[in-house]
Amino acid sequence: MKIFNTNDTKIFALGGLGEVGKNMYCVMHDNEIVIVDAGVMFPRDELMGIDYVIPDFSILKKNQEKVKALIITHGHEDHIGGIPFLLQTIKVPAIYAPKQAISLIKRKIEEKGLKYSKLFAYNRKTKLKFKYFGIEFFNTTHSIPDSHGLAISTPNGIIVMTGDFKFDWTPIGPMADLHKMAEIGQKDVTLLLSDSTNALVEGFSISESKVDEALSDIFTRCEGRIIIATFASNIYRLKHIIETCKQNNRKVAVFGRSMENSLAIAIEGGYIEDTDIIVTPEEANNIPNKELTLLCTGSQGEPLAALSRIANGSHRQIKLIPGDVVVFSSSAIPGNGASIAWTINQLYLKGVEVYTNTSLSEIHTSGHGSQEELKLMIRLISPKYFMPYHGEYRMLKAHNDLAVECGIPKNNTFILENGEILLMNNGVVKKNGFIPSSDIYVDGSRIGDIGSIVIKDRIIMANDGIIVIISNVNVNNNELISHSHITTRGFVLENENSELLAELEGLADNIIIKNLKSKKINYTNLKAQLIQEMAPYVHEKTGRKPIILPVFMEIKK
Amino acid sequence: MKIFNTNDTKIFALGGLGEVGKNMYCVMHDNEIVIVDAGVMFPRDELMGIDYVIPDFSILKKNQEKVKALIITHGHEDHIGGIPFLLQTIKVPAIYAPKQAISLIKRKIEEKGLKYSKLFAYNRKTKLKFKYFGIEFFNTTHSIPDSHGLAISTPNGIIVMTGDFKFDWTPIGPMADLHKMAEIGQKDVTLLLSDSTNALVEGFSISESKVDEALSDIFTRCEGRIIIATFASNIYRLKHIIETCKQNNRKVAVFGRSMENSLAIAIEGGYIEDTDIIVTPEEANNIPNKELTLLCTGSQGEPLAALSRIANGSHRQIKLIPGDVVVFSSSAIPGNGASIAWTINQLYLKGVEVYTNTSLSEIHTSGHGSQEELKLMIRLISPKYFMPYHGEYRMLKAHNDLAVECGIPKNNTFILENGEILLMNNGVVKKNGFIPSSDIYVDGSRIGDIGSIVIKDRIIMANDGIIVIISNVNVNNNELISHSHITTRGFVLENENSELLAELEGLADNIIIKNLKSKKINYTNLKAQLIQEMAPYVHEKTGRKPIILPVFMEIKK
Repeated sequence: MKIFNTNDTKIFALGGLGEVGKNMYCVMHDNEIVIVDAGVMFPRDELMGIDYVIPDFSILKKNQEKVKALIITHGHEDHIGGIPFLLQTIKVPAIYAPKQAISLIKRKIEEKGLKYSKLFAYNRKTKLKFKYFGIEFFNTTHSIPDSHGLAISTPNGIIVMTGDFKFDWTPIGPMADLHKMAEIGQKDVTLLLSDSTNALVEGFSISESKVDEALSDIFTRCEGRIIIATFASNIYRLKHIIETCKQNNRKVAVFGRSMENSLAIAIEGGYIEDTDIIVTPEEANNIPNKELTLLCTGSQGEPLAALSRIANGSHRQIKLIPGDVVVFSSSAIPGNGASIAWTINQLYLKGVEVYTNTSLSEIHTSGHGSQEELKLMIRLISPKYFMPYHGEYRMLKAHNDLAVECGIPKNNTFILENGEILLMNNGVVKKNGFIPSSDIYVDGSRIGDIGSIVIKDRIIMANDGIIVIISNVNVNNNELISHSHITTRGFVLENENSELLAELEGLADNIIIKNLKSKKINYTNLKAQLIQEMAPYVHEKTGRKPIILPVFMEIKK
Repeated sequence: MKIFNTNDTKIFALGGLGEVGKNMYCVMHDNEIVIVDAGVMFPRDELMGIDYVIPDFSILKKNQEKVKALIITHGHEDHIGGIPFLLQTIKVPAIYAPKQAISLIKRKIEEKGLKYSKLFAYNRKTKLKFKYFGIEFFNTTHSIPDSHGLAISTPNGIIVMTGDFKFDWTPIGPMADLHKMAEIGQKDVTLLLSDSTNALVEGFSISESKVDEALSDIFTRCEGRIIIATFASNIYRLKHIIETCKQNNRKVAVFGRSMENSLAIAIEGGYIEDTDIIVTPEEANNIPNKELTLLCTGSQGEPLAALSRIANGSHRQIKLIPGDVVVFSSSAIPGNGASIAWTINQLYLKGVEVYTNTSLSEIHTSGHGSQEELKLMIRLISPKYFMPYHGEYRMLKAHNDLAVECGIPKNNTFILENGEILLMNNGVVKKNGFIPSSDIYVDGSRIGDIGSIVIKDRIIMANDGIIVIISNVNVNNNELISHSHITTRGFVLENENSELLAELEGLADNIIIKNLKSKKINYTNLKAQLIQEMAPYVHEKTGRKPIILPVFMEIKK
């Protein structure tokens, strides 16, 4: 492809623009490609049954020999979740990631039954050198430890990618590398790509320390068990909760697989030290209520998560009792509002007290910077050109406006879509062309064998079910053998609607006999005819539009 | 039933407690039942394909001769949507409703092809008299005109039901009957049932006049077309938008069936007078952009609504152009956040300006009162007993706390579930027993023929599809005739996975032949066997768990 044969440096995203998820950004010069992050996206509701959405890797497959490394900024799913799928598709000579992410990636690769040995840890002092690219890192504050931004020096200028970040002057973990960012900012950065997730949120995000205060407050007041749901990956939050438990003479029992995994990795990595107060669910049964905290998954009301099962009474080990206090140390991810409300109602029905994040009790804060923090990053890095990344279109747009407010000329800002290419040549950046980019669906263990037809069928069946019409035709005389047989799923209760089903069978027989008589047999046409004539009848009788699936079996008799 | 044979007055809900929707409250004394409201509820996402949820009317059917009247407080779907289904189930001697609701109910009954002639309009001066009950009305402020609360005098005391309400000292429509409420409050009200929808919201709701100001502001600033999405039933909002258009020399074109219907009824009822500026979509094409407003459905991001189609470019008549301004004069109903965000992103991508409700531009307000307004109602009515109604459990609970704050003794407050009965005797109220209550599903034109099995099948098919295995068995010798045939929907793309499907057919044949040989034929067992052996294989190969539907056809050969 011509676009890959110039002296320009190219920057493009395979995912992460116009969406929150499947982050994957590529920087290319001549025969060298460095990939930054390889995430998955969780599908919208309409993508029925799809487990993950991943980027289309085909451009990387075609240019496989050019791929020199994958750099991971931090260990969240939208940055590392695509790694196993990428490794199944192309050879990746090396993956560089921070320590915490390495543990998560290893586990992920093992779970898929893959083998991969080229995982290397970097830290804020690491310098990577490739033929054209040099890469340095600065650590940022985010809702998972060990998050980094990076500065990539290229033959045509310096590119800075922030990774996910916020600023927090009183963090639980280490401070962000404010001075290193300032240093990089003094080096004539050509292009800044910056995290847009919270570009629509005014002001400055709340410090994790404030969250600590609010949570501590609940701990000192509460006399019963404390049940806390939070994001499993938010290690600092877990760390604080466990430390607060220790200070308040409480043991901690952990519920939910992702919470258990995340905690194990955090302990292994030395992020959490007070392991002496962690007890098993069985041990928890013998501990007085006011000395016990339960830490669990389910902050988004996910039906199968620990808290949801505790709330609806179906949890094997935990039954709610009056005096229990439930704390949602989390915020609602868009689309989850209804399930969270459902969980809260169930909790209230059981007579327990519930704390959620409100203006009165700040028991959660986001891991992404609000507008004032985004402006600070732009001012610190002082780039010539700006490209908002990591966000839906409305976020990218709001972020772009902030950059213009901060003095970047409007013509020097670029809102891109996945696949669009920025060319950088001798410190000048412009848009130029695009490579194909699309969403690839992963369902179960298989990648890409689900297309829009399958999804469409699932949507129809979800709403109205399916009617299967089976008819045996004697190939010797083109006659129907006995009656057509109808069976349904998700349509009506079959036992209570035998009359309707018999009617439909009769109708099918009539249509088939009429058509078998009148023309030369062509099953494709006959099926179409059957669907065309039966659908309106079914709709009239039931108001429903199920899939009608005719099957003809040819019998020699 | 014994509970219906005493001198007590009974109050119970068939819907509306522990949920927002399908409001239906009954007051009963001896052989007299008065029903207040008959609403539908829109189903949660998990209830795949279900159109409405309605209350179980069977207790009313059993006591049909006692039902004297249905009283409607106002014309929203969660108060009137169940009427056609109720009329199909029991004889209702009379329905009393305010004028605006009457128009909506008539249209609703006609659409279902039903006939009903006992619809009577009431207003704030109407007094209804039954053998035991006397009913008076007071009008309230809400997001639809002609909303009322009612005071029911019974042999055992006065019951007040607020209907849906807020207070607004500068409303667009008439003021609420503040003085009549105060009057009723001086008469020793025994029990107050009050609207809990916004009991979790602090403060006092924003006046509709403030919304007017914010909208007018946008109108004066904007040079292009203005496209406004709002709730179709919010007649006052429509009225204001149309008046503002007139003041700003703009014509209005209307898009979306529910918007057209609602506007037609509002004009018919005299609520909206400036009909001269309403134009057809065709006429709109010849009007300059700055003289045109488009009023449309889709404020919740509903995929088929006018605004969503305009946003994704699939609308037949309206294509977006730069300079267009889109206004969401609405709030997100829980669960709709993701679809609204999707619509907004599409709009931004088309380069238009978007206004949503924020602290900076108050272009929407709720129709339900916040905490300070709820306390005012409690103080005005000064009841001896209090029962929060119309809301999810967490709302009922918060509302109950407010009542206690306002001096109602905690023992005099009752949080009920649907079906629970309050007994009132000589001014004393207590809980006593319950009647069965459940959710009835309406899908298409049929009531109650969908059970949890059908829903469960739909969920499985939505996630993993269906595999139909058809096998012909020769009944003369119990042998399989030719090979089993597999067809799927929503499972994999059939064309690209013929190998997998052939494998599955082979596996099915083996299982069937083995079983036909070894035992006396029993199709039920054989089907179970087939499912049991094939499911793990399918899961191993694909990671999916589709419905496996074996069909055996018996052929005489």
